[in-house]
This record gives sequence, structure tokens and C-alpha cells, in this order.
Amino acid sequence: MPSLLFHGCRKAMIRTAVVGATGYTGQELVRILARHPEVELSALTSRRESGKAYSQVFPGFRGIVDLKITGHDLGRVCERAELVFLALPHAESQAAVAEVIERKRKAIDLSADFRFKRLKPYRHWYGEHRFPELLRRAVYGMPEIYRDKIKKAILVANPGCYPTSVILALKPLCERRLFDPESVIVDSKSGISGAGRSVIPTMMFSQVNESLRPYNIYHHRHTPEMEQELTALYKKKVQVTFAPHLVPLNRGILSTIYIRLVRKTSLERLHDIYQKAYSHEPFIRLLAPGELPDLMRVRGSNFCDIGLSLAESGRSAVITSAIDNLLKGASGTAVQNFNLMSGYPETTGLEQLPLVP
Amino acid sequence: MPSLLFHGCRKAMIRTAVVGATGYTGQELVRILARHPEVELSALTSRRESGKAYSQVFPGFRGIVDLKITGHDLGRVCERAELVFLALPHAESQAAVAEVIERKRKAIDLSADFRFKRLKPYRHWYGEHRFPELLRRAVYGMPEIYRDKIKKAILVANPGCYPTSVILALKPLCERRLFDPESVIVDSKSGISGAGRSVIPTMMFSQVNESLRPYNIYHHRHTPEMEQELTALYKKKVQVTFAPHLVPLNRGILSTIYIRLVRKTSLERLHDIYQKAYSHEPFIRLLAPGELPDLMRVRGSNFCDIGLSLAESGRSAVITSAIDNLLKGASGTAVQNFNLMSGYPETTGLEQLPLVP
Amino acid sequence: MPSLLFHGCRKAMIRTAVVGATGYTGQELVRILARHPEVELSALTSRRESGKAYSQVFPGFRGIVDLKITGHDLGRVCERAELVFLALPHAESQAAVAEVIERKRKAIDLSADFRFKRLKPYRHWYGEHRFPELLRRAVYGMPEIYRDKIKKAILVANPGCYPTSVILALKPLCERRLFDPESVIVDSKSGISGAGRSVIPTMMFSQVNESLRPYNIYHHRHTPEMEQELTALYKKKVQVTFAPHLVPLNRGILSTIYIRLVRKTSLERLHDIYQKAYSHEPFIRLLAPGELPDLMRVRGSNFCDIGLSLAESGRSAVITSAIDNLLKGASGTAVQNFNLMSGYPETTGLEQLPLVP
Amino acid sequence: MPSLLFHGCRKAMIRTAVVGATGYTGQELVRILARHPEVELSALTSRRESGKAYSQVFPGFRGIVDLKITGHDLGRVCERAELVFLALPHAESQAAVAEVIERKRKAIDLSADFRFKRLKPYRHWYGEHRFPELLRRAVYGMPEIYRDKIKKAILVANPGCYPTSVILALKPLCERRLFDPESVIVDSKSGISGAGRSVIPTMMFSQVNESLRPYNIYHHRHTPEMEQELTALYKKKVQVTFAPHLVPLNRGILSTIYIRLVRKTSLERLHDIYQKAYSHEPFIRLLAPGELPDLMRVRGSNFCDIGLSLAESGRSAVITSAIDNLLKGASGTAVQNFNLMSGYPETTGLEQLPLVP
Repeated sequence: MPSLLFHGCRKAMIRTAVVGATGYTGQELVRILARHPEVELSALTSRRESGKAYSQVFPGFRGIVDLKITGHDLGRVCERAELVFLALPHAESQAAVAEVIERKRKAIDLSADFRFKRLKPYRHWYGEHRFPELLRRAVYGMPEIYRDKIKKAILVANPGCYPTSVILALKPLCERRLFDPESVIVDSKSGISGAGRSVIPTMMFSQVNESLRPYNIYHHRHTPEMEQELTALYKKKVQVTFAPHLVPLNRGILSTIYIRLVRKTSLERLHDIYQKAYSHEPFIRLLAPGELPDLMRVRGSNFCDIGLSLAESGRSAVITSAIDNLLKGASGTAVQNFNLMSGYPETTGLEQLPLVP
Repeated sequence: MPSLLFHGCRKAMIRTAVVGATGYTGQELVRILARHPEVELSALTSRRESGKAYSQVFPGFRGIVDLKITGHDLGRVCERAELVFLALPHAESQAAVAEVIERKRKAIDLSADFRFKRLKPYRHWYGEHRFPELLRRAVYGMPEIYRDKIKKAILVANPGCYPTSVILALKPLCERRLFDPESVIVDSKSGISGAGRSVIPTMMFSQVNESLRPYNIYHHRHTPEMEQELTALYKKKVQVTFAPHLVPLNRGILSTIYIRLVRKTSLERLHDIYQKAYSHEPFIRLLAPGELPDLMRVRGSNFCDIGLSLAESGRSAVITSAIDNLLKGASGTAVQNFNLMSGYPETTGLEQLPLVP
Repeated sequence: MPSLLFHGCRKAMIRTAVVGATGYTGQELVRILARHPEVELSALTSRRESGKAYSQVFPGFRGIVDLKITGHDLGRVCERAELVFLALPHAESQAAVAEVIERKRKAIDLSADFRFKRLKPYRHWYGEHRFPELLRRAVYGMPEIYRDKIKKAILVANPGCYPTSVILALKPLCERRLFDPESVIVDSKSGISGAGRSVIPTMMFSQVNESLRPYNIYHHRHTPEMEQELTALYKKKVQVTFAPHLVPLNRGILSTIYIRLVRKTSLERLHDIYQKAYSHEPFIRLLAPGELPDLMRVRGSNFCDIGLSLAESGRSAVITSAIDNLLKGASGTAVQNFNLMSGYPETTGLEQLPLVP
Repeated sequence: MPSLLFHGCRKAMIRTAVVGATGYTGQELVRILARHPEVELSALTSRRESGKAYSQVFPGFRGIVDLKITGHDLGRVCERAELVFLALPHAESQAAVAEVIERKRKAIDLSADFRFKRLKPYRHWYGEHRFPELLRRAVYGMPEIYRDKIKKAILVANPGCYPTSVILALKPLCERRLFDPESVIVDSKSGISGAGRSVIPTMMFSQVNESLRPYNIYHHRHTPEMEQELTALYKKKVQVTFAPHLVPLNRGILSTIYIRLVRKTSLERLHDIYQKAYSHEPFIRLLAPGELPDLMRVRGSNFCDIGLSLAESGRSAVITSAIDNLLKGASGTAVQNFNLMSGYPETTGLEQLPLVP
């Protein structure tokens, strides 16, 4: 089989590695990067699958990504790659990132390990942190907030999936302090790929299909991440009541966010605020007043769709947002950050339109 | 094929009709009643399928319900049946119910036509009402609230699916006025059968599968129904912010309800309140503290599972409830009402345990 | 919560145990038996969950089956129960069944351990057999073939799910030797619950949902089971080409069976043959000529629907059959066998109609 | 919102129209063409949605395809476009294609109207044909067979979805006449998008989800199409027994094909034959011996995966193939044909890797 190379010639491509390439976010990174015109995939690692060709583990990649998987030997990885994506489990990522930075390579970390500016919430929700000094050097990888910092960053902490859907939905209102910061209620619905590729009894097909369940109400570790960023935008403590739910579909997060407004407003004005905030964002699509998002319309794409609903009283609102959790909620944003860090157009490799149906 | 009759002999069974027997709730009624030991199905009507055997339209009923479907001739229906279930579209039900009552038959109406005590909300959300005097004679068919009235009723207005999941979840707290009546936020997720058997483009498989979408936020006609009953229980106006969502599964409604408590409480105390309120209810299952409902555990049964979550502050709570929308959310409760009206044990014909998986 | 007892008084109920009560077929047995009017569930075992209440492991059974689970101590089980259902993994069942029989209790074994009349295929596909003498005493538990033998049996080997769908579909033609016994091609499609409750990476939701795959073509251990029974019916070696497929749904097996007829026939004649063969079978529903089965119409019921298609030439046919793999394909038939062995009407506890949708 | 233009400059792009742009294959064409680096979408037509912006009908395309939809005025279409894709219902396409050709534009027709070389099967399965002389000028658009003819064609008849999965699976064996041409049995399983976007009661979510059903056994109009092409390859009449099934998933066709070999062979030799036939095909992926296809691995891509299984006897085989019915089974192949007709690399715009999960 001839390789499906992108047509046209390319100059210097960036040699890139994916550490932890066999989880869902790892696979999704490989899928995007394999078609990214400026990327050469030079190293893929996985503790469990080390020694096999990537296409042996994932036959769907045969003839496309046949690179041999190695173990997590960061020394070798950094010899081969200029930039390293890390898609490791939380806590495991700390030392790996530290070594990449130590070896003067840029890192984009998809774990939660470098997302927090303060140690306390990290310790509470994830455990000890061995490299607190690196937290200061990490940039929270949300281009819509930190674009300029990301361009210059050497370490980007890629946002969590739920936080992405919530922070993008509330950013315009946070900046104008338009809602009561103590009243935020977030009801999120996530597809099952959000649980990752780990083999968990409760994620078996027959335990999930035709079912629907909330979990970790009031106790999900993405809550402090949302609160950190919303608080930074609002410049006042924002408190989030968060209830995540598992929905029987592969990809997507839909967040329904309930807020009380600090003053009466109109739907037109609300829409205007979002329009101003997001008109230049390539991946944020503000829906028309009255229109609501649908996971189908973002599936397989890097878009975040945002819908606005206002109570008749004009005093409370429901903001709804939809993303593909593996793209805008993880690997898509990671590649967006890569583009920013590498000087490429932000949308490179992310032009894929939603797969409908 | 021999018929699958219930073993054992039966005395006088109640002759029963289903008007509008070919929609989903109609089918579900027929399914339950065909196995109800005290029921003789004596008439089934459908405008469109009139003249065919029921089992011709639904081959799954062959050998079980071969009764010929007739048109909506209520005169003939009332000659044949002592009690009439009506599963007609809203508004269409008004005159049919009126005729059944006129002809001295008992009626259980699954439409919204007789659920409202006041005309105004009905008019606003459904249209004109031609039999307002009958509204006074109708009992809202929620056994957990109106059991005694239902026993004596001649006209029962069977509750809506979303309202059932919400009213049952909040009743114990309403009665004790434990939450701020202006702060109720209801985020409901419904399986697709809730949309009925009408052929609607947006309910085609490929438009719904692998998707998820909110609809009618702030503008769903089940809101005033919830508010009417919650207000009656609370004895003060309760206001509900309601956001329904469509989820790609056949059966089930999960409601996630956010409330602010009027005073600090503990999870144990909350659990105790529900325990007291529901310990005698055959179909309400209060989950253990920390446990959350799962649609899988109610699918195919008449149960309503309720879970309780309390904020660390003790000042706000999330109540979650799960029902099978075609059973406890419609036809199951209708049969429960039938049992009450007919003097049978309330659970007769509804003993079916959840189908897992 | 009051228990949902069947109304009406009961005389002596049969004390019954389920060994291996926490797999899918075990759960399904418990679900049916908990509502069976002649059964007292007196023992439930599970190695892993021993010591917990059944309803603690499966909260859906709270208030309904609160019995404490014990380990696989067959001595105690046989003290408590007159008849024992065994839903253990293949091979593990051998010794357990032997002990039950040794202790003079009746056994219904849902594993493959006693389905074979000859040792050779068992050894080839499952491994060593330590109780070959018991094979002779075992009756293959397909009521439609061995009803009389089952009534007197002390050990019933409950059929496999795929074989049930195939043997029932071909029995009438086998008995009349109407097809070429070397030409049978079986293309089966199974829901995921057929894979059991074991935690297998390839059965995770995201690995199965929106997918479809064949497996074990030419090499599935249900093939010799089909061949044994078809050969016995045909009285000449029947050879089956078998290709099973996994389909993203919870329950159901649809088998599409391709045969060459030994002489030209008509669809009416074919229908007539099946009609004669099955008109007295309570759970077999022969579809009208031209009609084809649909898993939806058997889901949650013990029915087997059979459809007939004939080539224009009249010389080859496609027989299609649909069952719920957990009911007619496993636990439903097991209870049917129990009824036969215990002298109850064969349909007792199995009257449940298909859940649509 | 800025447009997501492909980076880099382009020379002359081909102006292209999609007639019937709002069905599933039409949408899929627009999705691919909107990202095709050599295409300018210059006209989109739809009788029903004429006058609206494309992105108004499909909000997922907002900011990407905002072109206004026009009616099926082929005159205007041909003024604007050099090449016209037609995704109209069967029969409706005839006159439209004729007009496009008349106006000296190239046409790629996704209907069945120009797939047949002989009138008889078309008449039998689809109805009258008003432009029989055009049949001779049409090339059957399967690049793996007719690549050279397609390059020079002015009218390409894009293959049907089922035929694509079957013809590609059997081509290497046909050319060598290795199987009994009268013994071909095809059991195909299709996702629901294959039924198109028409609003059909049997395709409503609740009628399809958790179900599975065969349809049109022995009587599907794709059978003569398969037979025509297989016969041409085999140079002797090939007869196909075809049983299609509907499976509850969005995209994909898996065909399981049963053949008797004319002489004994080995799996290695079989694999070798396919390897030779397909090693240069960019979109056909031959699986390793023992490996079987999985719809998950082709979803969202233009690949066709082929698996080989051989009976122990070496005398019969099962060939399995998997495609995304909207890509390789329709619009993907259409774009592949477009590339061939326009002199672009065959894979242009079709590099998208499978979406997993």
C-alpha cells in the first residue's frame, strides 16, 4: 500500500513525540499529527506496548503510522523530538515533564499535573507534587485566554475536557462580571471516551449502553480547575456546583450552565457580548439567539459551539456549550497549542469538519 | 400457537379499553394490560390503524393481543369497557374524555388535558379548553400524593413524564419547606421514546444517535405542571428553571435537581426525611447516602429511584431521580391508578423487575 | 419499602438456588425467579461477592432480593435448595454439577459442560472432562426437542445462545431432510451481553459502540453444539459454516441461515411445514410469509421469532431467527426447563411481553 | 468568525457543484469538498431548501459553507461549475445528468441511474430509463477496476454502497475465477445512514436503536449491480444471494461473503492473491491472515478493509469487508473519481484517518 502522503513538498517539519501514545488522547494526537503538514512523528511511547509497531497495536494505522513504539525513555525521546506531547495519567506526568524541560525540549502536557497555579487544590485532588517550581513556568493551554503566553511557553498544561466546555462558555460573562459568582451550576454530560481507555467494569458496553448516570456530584476534580480559571477571569472567587453525567455515546461533552445575572439583560445584548468576545476565534461558534448546541455538530471537529438562553425575567441565563471531548477537550486543543508554540497558523491540521451523521 | 394465559383461574375481570392504542404509551398500556391478571382488554382504538388486528400492526403481539382495532367511536368503546385509558395527543383528548365521563365510564387520561387546576396555564401552553368544568372533577394521578382521591376518582389525569421525575424527587422537601422555592433548577435528560411515535425528522436515528441536545430551555410546557404540584405541596409559589435534554437511548428520564436549602442540614438528616416520606411507597426506592441513580436500574420497571447529594456547606443539595418514562412516567403509573380505582393491590401487573442489561 | 409480593396465596414453593448468581445469566435467572410464583430463592452464590447482600451488589434488587450471597459451598446450597441452577464459566461447572447430582438435587447447568453427547468435541473446544459418565445422564435442555426427557431429567444441560437460535430455525427442515446437510451457512449477529459480565478490553463501550465486527469465523465452539443437534434431527451429519458477529446493542441474537434445498419448493409449503412443527410451541412465533424478524420484537421476552425467505428458483432458502440471548438464549429457557422438571405450566414466570421500544 | 481556510496559496481551483446537497451523501460531499484544496464550491442545490444559506440549513457549516442554496436549475449550475456532482434520488437523476452532459460539463452521478450497462435490470428494479444512449457513455466509478476509463470519462456512475463492499472483496478472486460463481452468499450489515435522510417511520430512533433486522432478502436492487460487475470480472455469470441487515449505528457497512472455492487452497496463497491485486491501491487495506475487519477502523475514512478466512478443508472461504458507507460507499469514492477526472492525486481531500473511538 502506498503511503497517503500529503501532496506538495514541505520544508523543515517539526520532529514531535507522543509519550503515552496508546490511550484515547494519545491515539487522537497521533491521528491528527499523522496528517499535520508540519509535523514529523519521530517517537511514540507506551510502557505496555513497547517494541511493537504502532500499526500493530492499532491496525487502523497500518501503512500510515508504522513507527515502532518505545518505552518511556525520555532521554531517547528528547534526542529525537523537538517538542513532546505527554498523554500520561495524572501524577505520572510530573517527572516526565520535568525531564523534558530539563532536556530543553518544549512540552505539552495533557494531564492535570501542571494546570494548577496553587499547590493546595492539586494536592487535595491529585496528590503530592514533586516539581512545584515548574508550576510557575507552565501556561494553562487555553488559546482563547492565554494565546500570547502560549506562543512563548516551553511548558503548556493542556486544559481538562469539562473545564474547557465551561470556561469557554462563561469567559465573556466573567470578564464583565455579569453573573453572581456564587451561583454557578454546571450540569455536564460526557460521552464515554472521556473515561479513557482503561479497562473499568463500569465502562463495559452493557453497563453503559441504554443507561445514563450522574457521578461525583460536588466531588469532581475538574471543579477546582474551572474555579481557578473562572476566578482569574472574574477577578473574584467564582464557586461552581458541578454535576457530571455519563451518556452512552462515544465522543462529546455538553455542558448546561445555570447562572443568575447581576442585572437584567436582553438576549440581544447577551449575544452581542459573546459576539464581541469570540468573533476572532477560529474554533468558537456562537449560535444564533434561540439556537441550541448539538453534539452531532461538533463531533470529530475542534469546534466549541455555544448557545444562549435567557429567562423571561432577564435575570438568569442558561449557557450551553458543546465540544468533542477528544478534540477541543484534549488533543485538538493540544495541537492548537502546538501550532501557536511553533509559529504555524493556529488551525493547521485541525480543519476537519464535523462528521455528520 | 397456544395463548400464554396466566395460570390459575380468574373471576370477574374488568373490561378495559385503550383509546389511542398505537402510540408508545398506548402500546405500553396494552403490553402491561395484556398480562394484568384482572384485566380484559375489550377495545383498542386508533384512527389510522382502524380495521386491522392489533397484532397485525404490532407483530410482536401475535397470539397475545389479536383484538381488532376500531376507530375512536367512544360510544362503542363505552359499551364494551368499564374503564377507558386515553392515550391521545393533547387537546384531542378533551372531547373524548368528556364523552367517556358522560357515558358513566371511568377514565384515565394520559394527555395533559385534565392535569391543570387552573385554565390559564393550560390555555397558554396547550390552547383552548372546551370542558373546564371537568377540570374540577379530575384528580392528578400521582398516587404518592393523591392516593385516596384517586381511589374514588372517575377521571384521573395521569402526570407528565418529566413532572413525575421532578415532583417525586422534591415532594418530601416541599412538604417541609426546606428549600428556597425560587431557586429550583431542573436539568432533565430523556430517552427518545419520550418524543412519541410521531414521525419527526429530528427524531430519525441518524439525527439522534451519538448526539445529545438541550431543547426548549425556559419554554417547556411541563414546567407549569411541575410548578402547580410543587406549589400545592409547598403551599407557596415554587418557581422552576427547566432545561430538558434528548439523550440517545430508548427509555428513561434522569432529572438532576439543584436546590438551595433554607437551613444547613446533613446528608443523614436529608436521607431520614426521604426515608420517612417514602418508606411505604411500593415503587419509590430511596438510594443509600452517596449512591446515585442509574437509568439501567429502572429500565422496564415502574420504579422511581432517588439519590441525594449534599454540598459540603450543607446549604445546597442535588436531588437526582430516575424513571422509565413509559412506565412510571406514563403507562405504569396509569395502571397503578387503575389498580387504585379498581380496588386491586397497587402493584398488580407492575411487578416486572428492571431489565439489566 | 414494602416488598412487591405477587398477590394471591401460594402453596409449597420450590426452594431454588442460583450458583454463580452475579454474571449476566445469573442475574437474569434471579430476575425471573424473584417473580416466579412457584419459586423461593433460597441460595445465591458468587465467589467474588460472597458475604454481601444480593441487593448490595445489584442495587436494582433492593427490597426485592436481599438474600445474602454465599461462596460456592455446594453442600450448603444443596441443604437449602431442591433444584440448583448453575451459571458458572465452562469447565468450572463440571465438579459443581457432579456434586449437586451426588447430593440428590436436580441441576440445570447453563454452561457447556454437559451439552455434548460425545467427549471428543468437548475436549477439543473446552478441555478435559472429569465426569464423562454424567454426560449420559444429561438431557440437552431444548424443550422444543426433548420436552419429555426434560420432564424426567435430573440434569439438564441448557443450550448455548447461538445454537438455540439456529437449531430452532432448522428443526422442521432437519426432520424432513429438506436441505443439503453440507451446505448450511449461519451468519449470526449477537448483542454484547452475550460476552458476559467479564471485564474484557474489547467489550469496553468505546470499543464496541458504533462498531460491528465478525469474530472466530470457522472457529467458534458453538459450531459443534449446533452440528450435534442438527445431525441428531437430520439423522445424517450436518455441517455448519458459522460466522458470529458482535453488534452494538445489549440483548439479542439474530441468525441468518442460508440453505440449499434438496428439491424445489414454494414459500407456502415451507410455511406450512413450520406451522405444523411449531403450532403448539408457546414460545416460537412463526412469522407470516414475507415477514422478517426484528430483535426489537423479542427483547425482554422468551420468544423465538422465525422468518422464511425463498429464492425465486425455489431451490434455496434463507431462514432468519431472533431471540433475546439472555432469555430464550439462556435463562428463559432454563426456567422453561425448570417448569417442565417441576410440573408447572411451561410458561410460568415467562409471560413477560417484549419491551418495545 | 474568521474562515478556516487551508493555509498556503492555491492556483486555479475547479469550480464544482453539488446537485441535491442536503441529503446525507450530498452533505458528505460538501463536507469533503469544503476542505478539498483544489475545489471551489460554486453551486449547491436542493429543491426544498432553495433560497437559504447552506449554513442556515446545517448550522454545523456556519462560517465554512455559507453559499446560498438554489433550486435544481441545471442551466445556472452549469454556468457556475465545471464539474457537477449529482446526489439525487434514483430516476430523478436521469434528466439532470443528461442536461449536465448536454451542457458540456462533467458529471459524477451518485444515483443508480447510470450504473447499468443493460437496460433490463435497471427497468426491473428502478423503472423506465429515458436516456439509454447515455448508459454507454457512463463509466462505472470504481477506481480499483476502471481507473483509466474514469480519468477520461465525462460521466461517472458512482457505485452503490453495498456493491462497493462486495465487489472490492471479490475482485481478486473473480479475476482468477477461483470460486464457484453460482455459490456466492452475501450477508451485509449496514448502519442507518444508508437509508438516507428521508423521514421514514421505520428509521425513527426508537424503531431502530437496540434492534437489528434483515430486509429485502433475495430482493434488493443492489444485487443486479453486484452481479453485473462480478460477472464482468469473472467473465462468466456470477449469481449472488444477498441479505442486507440494518444495524443500530450511524456509519458503516460490513459484508460477510461466503464462497466455495473451485480448488483447495491455503490461507497464505489466498492472502498472496489479494496482496498482489491490491498492493498499489491507496484505500484498500488487506488485513493480516487471521485478522478480521471492524467498522470502527474505517469510520470517517475512505478505506476499505478486507479480511480473509479459510475453512480447514481449504475448499471454502469467508471474505469480510468493511467500509464507511458515506465515504468509500458513496461520497468518498465520488471525490476519488473527481480527482482522477481532474488530474489530481487520487487521495487529495481524502486523507482523513478513521475516527476512533
